[in-house]
Amino acid sequence: MAAPDPQLENLTAPDGPQPAGAAPRIVIVGGVATGMSAAARARRLDESAEILVLERGEHVSFAGCGLPYHVGGEIASADTLLVHTPATLAASLNLDVRTRHDVVGLDADARTVRVRTPDGERTIAYDALVLAPGARAVRPPLPGIDSPRVRTLRTVPDAVTLRSWVDGAARRAVVLGAGFIGLEAAEQLAAAGLEVAVVERTDHVLPPLEGELAALVTAELDRLGIAVHDGASATAIEPGDGSDVVVLDDGTRLDADLVVLSVGVRPDTAVFAAAGVATDDGAIVVDEHGRTNLPHVWAGGDAVVSTDAVTGVRRPVALAGPANRAGRQIADAILRPATARPIPAAVGTAIVRVGRLAAGMTGANRTALAAAGIAHHTLHLHPAQHAGWFPGATQVHLLLHFDDGGRILGAQAVGADGVDKRLDVLATAIRGGLGVEDLIDLDLAYAPPFGAAKDPVNLAGMAAANVLDGTLRPWHAADLDAVLASSLVLDVRTEAELATGHLPGILHVPHTELRARLDEVRAVAAGRPVAVLCQSGVRSNLAHRILRQAGFEASSLSGGMLTLRATLGRTAATRLVTPATAEVEAA
Amino acid sequence: MAAPDPQLENLTAPDGPQPAGAAPRIVIVGGVATGMSAAARARRLDESAEILVLERGEHVSFAGCGLPYHVGGEIASADTLLVHTPATLAASLNLDVRTRHDVVGLDADARTVRVRTPDGERTIAYDALVLAPGARAVRPPLPGIDSPRVRTLRTVPDAVTLRSWVDGAARRAVVLGAGFIGLEAAEQLAAAGLEVAVVERTDHVLPPLEGELAALVTAELDRLGIAVHDGASATAIEPGDGSDVVVLDDGTRLDADLVVLSVGVRPDTAVFAAAGVATDDGAIVVDEHGRTNLPHVWAGGDAVVSTDAVTGVRRPVALAGPANRAGRQIADAILRPATARPIPAAVGTAIVRVGRLAAGMTGANRTALAAAGIAHHTLHLHPAQHAGWFPGATQVHLLLHFDDGGRILGAQAVGADGVDKRLDVLATAIRGGLGVEDLIDLDLAYAPPFGAAKDPVNLAGMAAANVLDGTLRPWHAADLDAVLASSLVLDVRTEAELATGHLPGILHVPHTELRARLDEVRAVAAGRPVAVLCQSGVRSNLAHRILRQAGFEASSLSGGMLTLRATLGRTAATRLVTPATAEVEAA
Repeated sequence: MAAPDPQLENLTAPDGPQPAGAAPRIVIVGGVATGMSAAARARRLDESAEILVLERGEHVSFAGCGLPYHVGGEIASADTLLVHTPATLAASLNLDVRTRHDVVGLDADARTVRVRTPDGERTIAYDALVLAPGARAVRPPLPGIDSPRVRTLRTVPDAVTLRSWVDGAARRAVVLGAGFIGLEAAEQLAAAGLEVAVVERTDHVLPPLEGELAALVTAELDRLGIAVHDGASATAIEPGDGSDVVVLDDGTRLDADLVVLSVGVRPDTAVFAAAGVATDDGAIVVDEHGRTNLPHVWAGGDAVVSTDAVTGVRRPVALAGPANRAGRQIADAILRPATARPIPAAVGTAIVRVGRLAAGMTGANRTALAAAGIAHHTLHLHPAQHAGWFPGATQVHLLLHFDDGGRILGAQAVGADGVDKRLDVLATAIRGGLGVEDLIDLDLAYAPPFGAAKDPVNLAGMAAANVLDGTLRPWHAADLDAVLASSLVLDVRTEAELATGHLPGILHVPHTELRARLDEVRAVAAGRPVAVLCQSGVRSNLAHRILRQAGFEASSLSGGMLTLRATLGRTAATRLVTPATAEVEAA
Repeated sequence: MAAPDPQLENLTAPDGPQPAGAAPRIVIVGGVATGMSAAARARRLDESAEILVLERGEHVSFAGCGLPYHVGGEIASADTLLVHTPATLAASLNLDVRTRHDVVGLDADARTVRVRTPDGERTIAYDALVLAPGARAVRPPLPGIDSPRVRTLRTVPDAVTLRSWVDGAARRAVVLGAGFIGLEAAEQLAAAGLEVAVVERTDHVLPPLEGELAALVTAELDRLGIAVHDGASATAIEPGDGSDVVVLDDGTRLDADLVVLSVGVRPDTAVFAAAGVATDDGAIVVDEHGRTNLPHVWAGGDAVVSTDAVTGVRRPVALAGPANRAGRQIADAILRPATARPIPAAVGTAIVRVGRLAAGMTGANRTALAAAGIAHHTLHLHPAQHAGWFPGATQVHLLLHFDDGGRILGAQAVGADGVDKRLDVLATAIRGGLGVEDLIDLDLAYAPPFGAAKDPVNLAGMAAANVLDGTLRPWHAADLDAVLASSLVLDVRTEAELATGHLPGILHVPHTELRARLDEVRAVAAGRPVAVLCQSGVRSNLAHRILRQAGFEASSLSGGMLTLRATLGRTAATRLVTPATAEVEAA
């Protein structure tokens, strides 16, 4: 296995099941996630195969998702991130793993790859080639982007370098890009004691999350002391006084002893595209078995185009889970083509921890649904993660997108506990083609420390079913101005809740008094629709049922004041009336 | 609503959708779970309905599942358990809730129930009757069972009484029955400082759990200082010296200042059966809309027969989640019969916290599958609940039953973290009819604090798919004696692992040396099959693949030594060889 690499001859190519006794050579480009999963599975299926893994970097099979946690010290030793080494992989799986082997050419007719190694270039033949080159960090063409203080966070050496700076003199960090990795880095840098600013080009952190949920993450970043500059872009990185200065397009200048660049990734496929591998916007085009347009060449992971399970859109998905599982299925496609199962469409489930919160999503978001022209309903709920009367109850802020047919299109959640569980249940429901009414019927594990007799997911199903059959007519915080212009807003919370802030021009009738005060509502509404709201949407649902059965045109605010405040975000302070502001106005 | 109750006349009965303007009277027997859910849903659907809830006890809508936690003080105030009162239900939902109203008769022809109240008996007419009487604790006919120290744990007063004893002089508790409630009570009593013994008639605690998982719970009970008497029954409760003495059939005598009786529940249906409501072994027979055999009479919750979603067996299911959701669907069946969805078959998901562990199950267990004659495969896995390299990684001990067609029949899990999530995902998969191969494809939320790129559920799917296509041939700890008699047991763990205990008569070849030592294995096996094992089943899978491709008849121990030790239970100490026992033998 560790023998010198000869200039290898082509072997018989596997067109279908290998004849008994044949020993195919499988060459895998890329030694993490897809690549290493393919290698391990191939070995378990075929002891005779020669399996070469060519990795450009210093390490294979490292914990890429753990890199931010070494920067902050939560993972103390970088060695922890090295799950396997070429030596352990050789011993356990008889893999021939070569690091610092950069594939620089592919000749599909000759079935060879050209590889740059520490000992010079060489040509390696294959029977089957698996391309798992992954993605590269996007480096925007900013003046100063090549400053040595600017680092991406893609490799173990990246993490080790950043960790050394954090342990050293670095006091101020700027994170460019508030996606998943950016927020993990920001959280970790702040936990390590640095002064951290996050810059996000779009109008809110965690762009894939809807704004009304991302606002909760922004609030947590505030609590952690992390400055959020959303709706802002860096225009230059300038040398400063013993540090760099990140200049934003709004004029802000942020001192930075280090800058983490996390503005996205792009499939790393130029070598293969140049060799005739079909790509789409840089991502390798594959069929459901990972086959490229070239014979004997498969591809998977961050570098390929996936089909979105909800919208059907084709796009690259840079997620560790699907990448790992695709590797296994590509090995099956190579070695057991007759029975290999297709690589599934991507549901796109993702999650991030930010301080005390988890935030995540599954399926499509509003932007993706709009782009695909898919009409949908949206509901917001704020149930407790476990029985409300059991110690430690905390809200799961949950959002569900679904269509008129009850199809679950997407879900998002933010909260301190139980977020990952609800996302996983909903991801399973999406994969299984369950509809919103099926969510009502899920028998989820209930004991007081773990859930509720009506789990948040059950409740989401009930509310969605109510929307579909007309029992619940929601209105949405995003439509607030139109609602204020056309409707009477009826706030059915208690007096004490009202004092924490309310919309201007409301009628206040606690929900327990509504049945007795319908005439008053009728008089004030004066023929207008009545838009009911409460704190989370439960009481307003009940109240709007009372009103509708009494002949009113009524609707209930989805997610109540909790969602309304989050939707208003920083403008909530000026849009809502509180006793304090009321006094100022009266003065 | 609070007006004196007249002797009510029959109203027009709802044979199908109510005519506009009709105000049906819905009478609901039982004010928790099914009953209160039915009442609340009925009100949201119909403001005009007269809705009476008749509850035998002092409280309605109380947190029955929270009772053990008040006994131990984790829920400090009993008021916390009273989620609603008749007054709050009247104000919010315009319900007429009457406690201490015990239904003692039913005249289905007259459409009336006879009710014993604090003010004497009266007759109440109904248009629709919902029977949600729940279940009663089983009281075995033991001598001394009526001792005042013996309590069940079904009502708030039960919990308050036990709490007062715990706060008082009680030092020793005996819990009869180690089911869910029994273990919750035992955990709480121990946490409150009492000396606790648990007595369980079957051969292991948590009888619905398979023994090899229950052993982990027993170990946790040991750690908590709770004495476990399994395979033992109480034969008498005798007066002792300032306490009772619980006498077991093995002669053990357990001093008890208090005894919690938790040996099961029985549907509480005698009154209704006597009135002609069809029952099966005491449980009310209903159709998929909760209809009994009598017109205008529905029933739901712990008192009715459910269909098991996996086995098709009809049996009562005493679980809070299904009971609550059935109430909602019964209200739909009454008020919207044309569009009401059926009450689903029961998947039977359940969970319990015991100290640091959670233990639970979904779907059918081995006993239920055997009773239903359903052939099945079983697999055991011990993956970490999140990325192994991330701090806090701990094992989820997972078990999966599935059939030859890949249908998921049941799953069980025990662990310190992430158990509820995996059970919920698997419960959703069972409800959705997903097969084991679909588990491979689940896009579950992954970031290092929450999961793994290959989640335990994905891994279970992969292993099961390997079994179905013959890639993995498991052997089982339950068959140990037969395997020892027929096969060479090959232990592929490291030397250090071997020193913690191993089976007698093994051949030891670390898995990394196996390829080079095949001749040695062949010589020792001498034609026998080779039963491979490692610590958790991962390396033995790889090793048995190597052996099979080299021509051996080989299999891999499901769940490895972890499952084998748990299966052996208390006999592990004598069945396994350790350096200590080896020295003893040599001496």
